[in-house]
Amino acid sequence: MKVNGRHFETIWMHPDKGGVVQIIDQRYLPFDFVIEDLTTVEDIFTAIRDMHLRGAPLIGAAGALGMYLAMLQAPAGEGISAYVGRMARYLKSARPTAVNLAWGVDRVVRSLMNGNSRQEMIDRALEIALLIIAEERTNSRKIGENGLDLIEEISRRKPDIPVNILTHCNAGWLACIDYGTALAPVYLAHDKGIRLHIWVDETRPRNQGARLTAWELQQHGVPCTVITDNAGGYLMQQGRVDMVLVGSDRASSHGDIVNKVGTYLKALAAFDNHVPFYAALPSSTIDWDLEEGAMKTAVEERDAGEVRYAEGWIDGHHGRLLMMPEVTAVVNYGFDVTPARLVTAIITERGITEANRNHILKLFPEKPKTRLYE
Amino acid sequence: MKVNGRHFETIWMHPDKGGVVQIIDQRYLPFDFVIEDLTTVEDIFTAIRDMHLRGAPLIGAAGALGMYLAMLQAPAGEGISAYVGRMARYLKSARPTAVNLAWGVDRVVRSLMNGNSRQEMIDRALEIALLIIAEERTNSRKIGENGLDLIEEISRRKPDIPVNILTHCNAGWLACIDYGTALAPVYLAHDKGIRLHIWVDETRPRNQGARLTAWELQQHGVPCTVITDNAGGYLMQQGRVDMVLVGSDRASSHGDIVNKVGTYLKALAAFDNHVPFYAALPSSTIDWDLEEGAMKTAVEERDAGEVRYAEGWIDGHHGRLLMMPEVTAVVNYGFDVTPARLVTAIITERGITEANRNHILKLFPEKPKTRLYE
Repeated sequence: MKVNGRHFETIWMHPDKGGVVQIIDQRYLPFDFVIEDLTTVEDIFTAIRDMHLRGAPLIGAAGALGMYLAMLQAPAGEGISAYVGRMARYLKSARPTAVNLAWGVDRVVRSLMNGNSRQEMIDRALEIALLIIAEERTNSRKIGENGLDLIEEISRRKPDIPVNILTHCNAGWLACIDYGTALAPVYLAHDKGIRLHIWVDETRPRNQGARLTAWELQQHGVPCTVITDNAGGYLMQQGRVDMVLVGSDRASSHGDIVNKVGTYLKALAAFDNHVPFYAALPSSTIDWDLEEGAMKTAVEERDAGEVRYAEGWIDGHHGRLLMMPEVTAVVNYGFDVTPARLVTAIITERGITEANRNHILKLFPEKPKTRLYE
Repeated sequence: MKVNGRHFETIWMHPDKGGVVQIIDQRYLPFDFVIEDLTTVEDIFTAIRDMHLRGAPLIGAAGALGMYLAMLQAPAGEGISAYVGRMARYLKSARPTAVNLAWGVDRVVRSLMNGNSRQEMIDRALEIALLIIAEERTNSRKIGENGLDLIEEISRRKPDIPVNILTHCNAGWLACIDYGTALAPVYLAHDKGIRLHIWVDETRPRNQGARLTAWELQQHGVPCTVITDNAGGYLMQQGRVDMVLVGSDRASSHGDIVNKVGTYLKALAAFDNHVPFYAALPSSTIDWDLEEGAMKTAVEERDAGEVRYAEGWIDGHHGRLLMMPEVTAVVNYGFDVTPARLVTAIITERGITEANRNHILKLFPEKPKTRLYE
């Protein structure tokens, strides 16, 4: 979408230099707009682990490009298949909860099985990575078109008042290649002239809402207001939220949604106040192998420093501030699980589905007979 | 309770200087322990408005002492009763949502009605303010004794594992005179040797949990861990919370609880996970005149700067950090309403009651025939 009036995506190959991946380094937003060059698989690993980029679809694309950079670096001395396996494991360990990362990396790995020469494998890795990028762009666009119907329906009921949408974390174009997941319907609705206003949860501890979601909405001209994560329940009690729209880091085919910690609390408040709650996600986010109720596992515990410190701007420079003494015990869980019973519907690239396995499989009939990475 | 091993309360008369109120200036906690002298009604107003002190019972006591300082300053030229009314309105406007502030101020005002001389009125104001302090100390102690039963009951079921209690904001002794409301049972249980662990919501935007609750628990030796406001739902899903215990800034006699924004979200998560949810409050917090469902009104909208900035420690000095650009639109609601249906029980100085008018009035049978400030 737009940055200072010019169209950007989140990740792309350097137009002039071969073997150089470029990304928006999201750590400096919203204060600085920085483009980072990534030239090694280690650069990609660090960018994923330290969240220079984040968001399920974008992480998948970055992982795939990471495998391409790994192939460029492949040493002569090691058996290529052992090397490929090692690099894949390495990249996937950067964010263990992100199913898209494994999905993107493994898709490149599979494509290398039939490679005859090293150069052919390099070419094939790049080809698949760029294909993933193109697919994710298309998926986001389609999610936007499908979710647009839901926003238009509300707008028709209250044509002179903005549709109020609450979102948590960042599931915008900065989390994807373009458009976003949760925000894709928002951008398409805005571009179509529908009046909107977005309540943006700041999303502690890393404040992706205040720093990324608010920034990208502002850059594209969509009215929005930042609130603390505590405030959404009150707004729903007051009737000031028409719908909740979030992304997902991992979903089960039973309709359970793993997303940034705090999402579950908003889903509870939406349910309690009869506000529809939607998760927007590309089907690559769905882990088809998970049993019902199995999503309690594998929640990432992150560094306590993210909670103790706030990052931002001090006297015109980047800095961080200690909000509680270093001796204070802290735990930092990254995600929670919103059970399917609280999810009004799931918006995918193929359409909108109820959050249960029967309905989801109607949209993806090819899935039940297959396993992951078909 | 204890600070560096020495017993402190939150507000007291200077032991040597007449007409000087002393408080712990809570703005500098947990990094600096600062005692502030307040010598004028304007000092008290500022201390309440700018949250040098906060917490329903403490605000009530401070308001009463504010009326005492006002009487000391009473000008000769103005009619005393007009002056008293003006000072009372002025003090009450410092925190319009806090029913205890009005209660404390008006209780002093009523006591002045029968005053014969200016000196008698000054003496009477101080007497009533000190009586309020003594009553609040006793109320907290009794709330602690009543709530202790609930903690002991859980501890008996799991004697070798700490009882895990989640709390939001600060309803500890720093919010009261001593002991606290929500934390009073915690301190009494700890002093009795019951193993406890407290999950402390950081409580954005002002982080009273991370800054005050964690500090006072640590100073008294109670194990605790700070979490983001987003994390409590996940912990309850995981079965890692035995009870939720919060205070209240205002309650209705129907059992609805106004408390720091975000409390409602924790109550929803507790209800969804069969975790008992208790509000601990002195009966002075109950607004007996409110109709059922009338609590949606009068929620304080606070300065957006509290959300945009984080306060804390930068390179060993107090400072603040901008977390999102100043141009970002922000709203900052201070409170939300937890409906009675989500409240397992209310802990008061007279005992534990179900959160409905019939049961509450059984504890306070003198109330139905009277109005506010009887």
